[in-house]
Amino acid sequence: MAEAAGVSVSTVSHVVNNTGARIGQDARERVRRAIEDLGYRPNAMAKNLVKGASRFLGLVADAIASTPFAGQIIHGAQDEAWQHGYVLLVANTEGNQGAEASAISMMLEHKVRGILYSTWYHRAIDLPAGLAEADTVLVNCYSTGHPVPAVVPDESTGGRDATQMLVDQGHQRIAFLNTRTPSPARDGRLAGYRQALQSAGLPFDPSLVAEVQPDQEGGYAAVDHILATRATGVFCHNDRVAMGLYDGLRDRDLHVPTDVSVVGFDNQEVIAAHLHPTLSTVALPHYELGRRGVRVLLGLDVIERPGPLAVACPCVPRNSITRPSRV
Amino acid sequence: MAEAAGVSVSTVSHVVNNTGARIGQDARERVRRAIEDLGYRPNAMAKNLVKGASRFLGLVADAIASTPFAGQIIHGAQDEAWQHGYVLLVANTEGNQGAEASAISMMLEHKVRGILYSTWYHRAIDLPAGLAEADTVLVNCYSTGHPVPAVVPDESTGGRDATQMLVDQGHQRIAFLNTRTPSPARDGRLAGYRQALQSAGLPFDPSLVAEVQPDQEGGYAAVDHILATRATGVFCHNDRVAMGLYDGLRDRDLHVPTDVSVVGFDNQEVIAAHLHPTLSTVALPHYELGRRGVRVLLGLDVIERPGPLAVACPCVPRNSITRPSRV
Repeated sequence: MAEAAGVSVSTVSHVVNNTGARIGQDARERVRRAIEDLGYRPNAMAKNLVKGASRFLGLVADAIASTPFAGQIIHGAQDEAWQHGYVLLVANTEGNQGAEASAISMMLEHKVRGILYSTWYHRAIDLPAGLAEADTVLVNCYSTGHPVPAVVPDESTGGRDATQMLVDQGHQRIAFLNTRTPSPARDGRLAGYRQALQSAGLPFDPSLVAEVQPDQEGGYAAVDHILATRATGVFCHNDRVAMGLYDGLRDRDLHVPTDVSVVGFDNQEVIAAHLHPTLSTVALPHYELGRRGVRVLLGLDVIERPGPLAVACPCVPRNSITRPSRV
Repeated sequence: MAEAAGVSVSTVSHVVNNTGARIGQDARERVRRAIEDLGYRPNAMAKNLVKGASRFLGLVADAIASTPFAGQIIHGAQDEAWQHGYVLLVANTEGNQGAEASAISMMLEHKVRGILYSTWYHRAIDLPAGLAEADTVLVNCYSTGHPVPAVVPDESTGGRDATQMLVDQGHQRIAFLNTRTPSPARDGRLAGYRQALQSAGLPFDPSLVAEVQPDQEGGYAAVDHILATRATGVFCHNDRVAMGLYDGLRDRDLHVPTDVSVVGFDNQEVIAAHLHPTLSTVALPHYELGRRGVRVLLGLDVIERPGPLAVACPCVPRNSITRPSRV
């Protein structure tokens, strides 16, 4: 290459690796032409080895095969990583600890610049041992034991805004089908629900809150409870619960939203926009979590307050809410 | 390291890289102990550079953020790759050609052993230019112009088995809600549907086949057509069409399966097992496609006949099929 360009090897290296060294325009041009003539492809591994650290970022994800959530985190992280010249090394663990340890070890061997560790649902984790050796950012999870930077969804503001969509249409008896799984989503969305009621001057009535299995079966099984509460609107812990509730209401010849208004959470692909009627919900910001995770890892965003960085969950209004037929 | 072990640098290299050189048991043991004492982690990039090719396999996937299908392909490919000591470099393109070209170029720079190129739905593709430089296997897609090995789902056998589930329960008037999108799935599933009817001695009646938008909206809009055909069973192009059909039937006070039996295709996560009643369907083998793609790439499986390797779509019987109330 240097021979073809008629320049020194170190000049070629400076040009190819963009070191910022002062190389004359003429020499630069000759190197570029030689690169084209020779069909030269820079050897990324050789470049990395010389620099001591690679242009890799690692992303360890669980549940990539069973929900689109991990995919959205990967999508956001990759877009942001590529923008800054990094390649994302993705490893999928499906929750398996052995696979997780291998993935982290593989990433350290490849001298990643840092590792994003992500979970498909928002939860507290025990920090995997290998992560101590790398710059780490937790995505959609956090560690109580270690002060590791974390990026998570803002559950309470999301819960508040979901409830507010019902309040705005005049609902006063609003039930909440929460999950029975202890989690930041359970606590945060409940806090948001209470906050919205309080702002609207509505009393908090514990009998309006039930905890269910957080899927279609849980929503379906809760219909009789909902009818007994005489709620006119229901905030569901997630879109799957809302989908089950729809089915249960239909089996009793009741209609959404004329008989009962419903709001979900997640804006889950393949479901929320395709129910009859389409489901008003609040979006989990998985793409944004992946994107912000990379920005924190690269020092482009700084987490100023203690605790995880909370990312907003935007409202997605559709057709499952109307004014109550009775108050 | 060599110093700590009291052996030569080349001995350390032979032991660490498993070159197969004859090294005495004692020296081997001393190297291992030194590795443990020093907390030595082999530098994967340096090893790769020496060998000239890396232990990476590339996987280019579209639509990772919007369906779990790409995730299942990644899961299967990664499990198989890891089993043979390879790390999977995953790149997500979301169908963007620029992202695709960057991904392939990045993989070539990292000297991948080969590239899997996958699409989230089964289709013919124009082979991206960069793939000519690498060993390539197409997953869930194929190229008509280039003789590149490909692994795809067996659509026609899947369509036959789905229809057969209805035949087995005594249905004789079986409608088929096919997709209106030209694709191997449309042609293959129709061929399978006709094959099952023929084996059962049932006539093929073109008025029983309709082409719809392949999602919930398409199934919902087809209900009047289905009722007009007096079909007792319906084979739906995919689970989303079946979900829309369920909703449309309910709106007319009809029940699955007592009024109409329904079978889907895909076994889509989050839907098929969670409808009321749960949906009998045929599974798209995405995990297996990813796994077999890696096996073909590494030469562990050989495609013997011309054309793509067809992977079976297994039946998943649930509760949406019963005997017809009328024949």
